[in-house]
Amino acid sequence: MSVTAPQGFVASGVAAGIKASGALDLALVAAEPAGAVAGSATFTTNLAAAAPVQISRTHLAATRGHVAAVLLNSGCANAATGAQGLEAARKSAATVAAALGVGVDEVLVCSTGLIGPHLPLGQLVAAVPELVDRLGASRSDAARAAEAILTTDTHAKEVVVERDGFVVGGMVKGAGMIAPNMATMLAVLTTDASVGPPVLGDALRRAVAASFNELTVDGCTSTNDTVSVLASGLGRAVDADELADALLEACADLAFQLAEDAEGTTRVARVVVTGAASGEDARRAARAVAQSNLVKTSLYGADPYWGRVLSELGASGAAFDLASVSVRYGETLVFAEGCEVGHDRAATSGYLSGSVVEVRCDLGLGQGEATVLTTDLGPGYIDENMRTS
Amino acid sequence: MSVTAPQGFVASGVAAGIKASGALDLALVAAEPAGAVAGSATFTTNLAAAAPVQISRTHLAATRGHVAAVLLNSGCANAATGAQGLEAARKSAATVAAALGVGVDEVLVCSTGLIGPHLPLGQLVAAVPELVDRLGASRSDAARAAEAILTTDTHAKEVVVERDGFVVGGMVKGAGMIAPNMATMLAVLTTDASVGPPVLGDALRRAVAASFNELTVDGCTSTNDTVSVLASGLGRAVDADELADALLEACADLAFQLAEDAEGTTRVARVVVTGAASGEDARRAARAVAQSNLVKTSLYGADPYWGRVLSELGASGAAFDLASVSVRYGETLVFAEGCEVGHDRAATSGYLSGSVVEVRCDLGLGQGEATVLTTDLGPGYIDENMRTS
Repeated sequence: MSVTAPQGFVASGVAAGIKASGALDLALVAAEPAGAVAGSATFTTNLAAAAPVQISRTHLAATRGHVAAVLLNSGCANAATGAQGLEAARKSAATVAAALGVGVDEVLVCSTGLIGPHLPLGQLVAAVPELVDRLGASRSDAARAAEAILTTDTHAKEVVVERDGFVVGGMVKGAGMIAPNMATMLAVLTTDASVGPPVLGDALRRAVAASFNELTVDGCTSTNDTVSVLASGLGRAVDADELADALLEACADLAFQLAEDAEGTTRVARVVVTGAASGEDARRAARAVAQSNLVKTSLYGADPYWGRVLSELGASGAAFDLASVSVRYGETLVFAEGCEVGHDRAATSGYLSGSVVEVRCDLGLGQGEATVLTTDLGPGYIDENMRTS
Repeated sequence: MSVTAPQGFVASGVAAGIKASGALDLALVAAEPAGAVAGSATFTTNLAAAAPVQISRTHLAATRGHVAAVLLNSGCANAATGAQGLEAARKSAATVAAALGVGVDEVLVCSTGLIGPHLPLGQLVAAVPELVDRLGASRSDAARAAEAILTTDTHAKEVVVERDGFVVGGMVKGAGMIAPNMATMLAVLTTDASVGPPVLGDALRRAVAASFNELTVDGCTSTNDTVSVLASGLGRAVDADELADALLEACADLAFQLAEDAEGTTRVARVVVTGAASGEDARRAARAVAQSNLVKTSLYGADPYWGRVLSELGASGAAFDLASVSVRYGETLVFAEGCEVGHDRAATSGYLSGSVVEVRCDLGLGQGEATVLTTDLGPGYIDENMRTS
């Protein structure tokens, strides 16, 4: 069900021929009945933002937060494509808007794939009638939409969060170029909560900050990242806290799915920092450990070499006192009071061989806490990324 | 010759048994005749600084820049070893000082190897008589010292820069954990220029900033980095500019050798950014490209996927306007005026297959320029780092 689980939404996915493989590559999520509902989105902070990001920003500003549909394609990022790319993004939105009978500004557009190639607009436009015709609220309709946005992902990623009186649904694609501010990823969230655009936008930003923006795979912030949310208002009225909480649950679930399915990943690690001098210091320290190639390579080898964790904490810029730091792999204390703590190395390595592991660092200085999700770094990442064509 | 090329220095290297392999693992560079000469050093910015870094900082401060010798060991970083580690570093300096007949504060100490294990002080102390006995100014004496500081390096790295009336010599070890601020590396530079500690320190900082601190292998700043310099004063008097220039030539040569011999590297890339709004922006942009796992993995695959370069420039935090950026691989223009520029892809890939390549980015905004040296990221890096034991 995912994006069609909340009342008031339909979805579809088709093969438009943007991917040479003939796989599904064009998805639509729309309000049903057709018409603008409250919408919001957060976009990449990359200044080389792709054409669809630029167009979607303009559309959201023009409607002041009312969105009828989100069109997403895989197989081409439509990034670094100049004026022609902007025109292609605009025309694809206009084609969908005409087919749905809504304003062009009420359609957001998202693209993912290689940077550089031009969007095959003719093929995309030709596929819109089938895309609109297939719109439906069934589980398989949502699943086809989730399938059509994948790139190097190995499977579709969906979520449904049910709360008293309202539901949140969502789908995401990721795989590589994943970093805070944000992952290379496209996500669409839907809810039937009754809420206006300002509250919706606020709740989205809070949920994204504590989920997708606390995930790092390779520290690369892409040109196309977009998380959008649509609220049909068919459920009960909610306040920002309540909505943010439900959106966070959905986003955190999707972020974990992204980590698990990241390019070449064999395990997911939660880097938990406690006892930092501030929350900001905790995030800085956790990100430093989570982004370290040496830590990530150790994780691939299930090697309990805590020295690299300690070194990254010390180099992170967070307030740091070696004598007050402790490091644990799961429950096993491996460093405290300035020195290594004796532990059963084989057992610790066994723990680190799991599919989900925790690296827990207490800085012993204050109350700041943060958790960052990361992945290991093994040959699979290199195999997937060394050649794009 | 390297560190013994300038007049007034001797060196030696022995196997003290710190490395289980029995390889050379203890080196000494000393002023000859014994006695303090002008000295300076720059150290890691990592707050988890190892015991030898802490001790050397104290010694330099106590003598106000007079150094008689630098003792270096490989096989153990003596980092995260608490009070016992500090005592071991202090005692190793004292043992050498007694053997040379100089003050303990006049000896700097450097260690490299795994973080965590305690320095085998007994073995080290037992090897000092042979180490001092072997001190000499021949090419092979210097070569043994350069050999004794290696860890995962595949060969020793030395340099000699001859100027009118003075000489600079140097040796370095590196291999992994290489990042700005600084590489995991130990370097010792010597010169017979006649110069006091303040000018020597200033010249060293300038040379390091433009060489070792513009090299990145994996973005990891280690606990032990130290670059020290000793000036015997037996040559002619020099000013800071003249000395900085000679030290920079030596450091840049050693930094390039570090990159070439970095763990698992198959090629070295110079990332050159021009046209940035400021020098700081240029460095930020060049480092972002140079540290990107996606760019580095493309370099390993000799894949001319400029989209990743562009994306990193846009995400770097430097002022950026997509329409004014151009990207070249060597001389080949691949992106300009917002779009890909047609080029012979096979030829560009052929260029990228070389052992030294250039990625040149012009931001088209101002006069800021910077060059950062980096390496590709291939399976060799993972093979070397996935298990430490």
